[in-house]
Amino acid sequence: MQLLKQKIKDEGTVLNDQVLKVDSFLNHQIDPVLMQEIGREFAYRFKNEEITKILTLESSGIAPSVMTGLFLGVPVVFARKRKSLTLTENLLTANVYSFTKQEENPIAVSGSHLKNSDCVLIIDDFLANGQAAKGLMEITKQSGAKLAGIGIVIEKAFQDGGSELRDLGVKVESLARISSLANREVSFTEEVTV
Amino acid sequence: MQLLKQKIKDEGTVLNDQVLKVDSFLNHQIDPVLMQEIGREFAYRFKNEEITKILTLESSGIAPSVMTGLFLGVPVVFARKRKSLTLTENLLTANVYSFTKQEENPIAVSGSHLKNSDCVLIIDDFLANGQAAKGLMEITKQSGAKLAGIGIVIEKAFQDGGSELRDLGVKVESLARISSLANREVSFTEEVTV
Repeated sequence: MQLLKQKIKDEGTVLNDQVLKVDSFLNHQIDPVLMQEIGREFAYRFKNEEITKILTLESSGIAPSVMTGLFLGVPVVFARKRKSLTLTENLLTANVYSFTKQEENPIAVSGSHLKNSDCVLIIDDFLANGQAAKGLMEITKQSGAKLAGIGIVIEKAFQDGGSELRDLGVKVESLARISSLANREVSFTEEVTV
Repeated sequence: MQLLKQKIKDEGTVLNDQVLKVDSFLNHQIDPVLMQEIGREFAYRFKNEEITKILTLESSGIAPSVMTGLFLGVPVVFARKRKSLTLTENLLTANVYSFTKQEENPIAVSGSHLKNSDCVLIIDDFLANGQAAKGLMEITKQSGAKLAGIGIVIEKAFQDGGSELRDLGVKVESLARISSLANREVSFTEEVTV
């Protein structure tokens, strides 16, 4: 997605050869117009999959997911990482190691909002080692719902998550794929044709 | 906002006389069409305020804020409650006691994304005791930006937050105002004409 790649080039900061900071348009400040275009693109790529629900993880997955949900006409559920007074019953849970936060968190979704009749599109902001995506896949599996695929805004293709998920036969659509962050520079690689 | 009040009546669950659960369309599962209408309404109510930025708090403030940002043509910044690998410098911080989580959390925004030239609209999902709103106001004040006002999706008007903020002269626009949650029933009160 050219608009996204240009945004990464113009505003992204390479902190080190593992970490790209995109706080100005995705992870802290959000560009709503870019989110709308991301939503439009995800909806296009998954338009034939009969999706009934989008599943994401708080917080950075919410904006791209809500825009995608608007285009697809489906609700969005965000898995919670922290305790909530109202999220207490019928919980589907998984453990996720966060690459950026360097800690393991349980994540939870209420089974009231994910049924075995659902067809789920998982969306997240980054794909690195695949931990968050696998956690959301585990929750999808516990619900009995079908997994249509995974939409990722930025994939760090030099880490293993993407290839592991594709090797499992999952349809993974990444809007930007980064081959390297070496020398404080962002290099992109081809998108994977599905 | 009639659509929102109907949604609350149809899908909200009164947990006790202090807590309304709206996990099916706002706080866990999100209804993107409703969020779009909320964004449209907030943008309308603040259209003359020359807003340059929306400030909210993760996670439930993000969806209504991003939609409002789309209508107003401005970016959205969400204050973080937890440590982030990329949110480390130039921090504006405040302490917020969460009514639903029953704990105090520091919240943080990067000063890179909030300038003294900004005119800020604060948006949040609920207004109860006003703690979150006051925390975001404190951060706005630290940045030197002007505060245009506060947009709240659901105000619990039987708690003090709304009246305290209005007594400070802040323009508070709530899309639904709840007068009571007694007897497991949601009662609405009039919107406050500003």
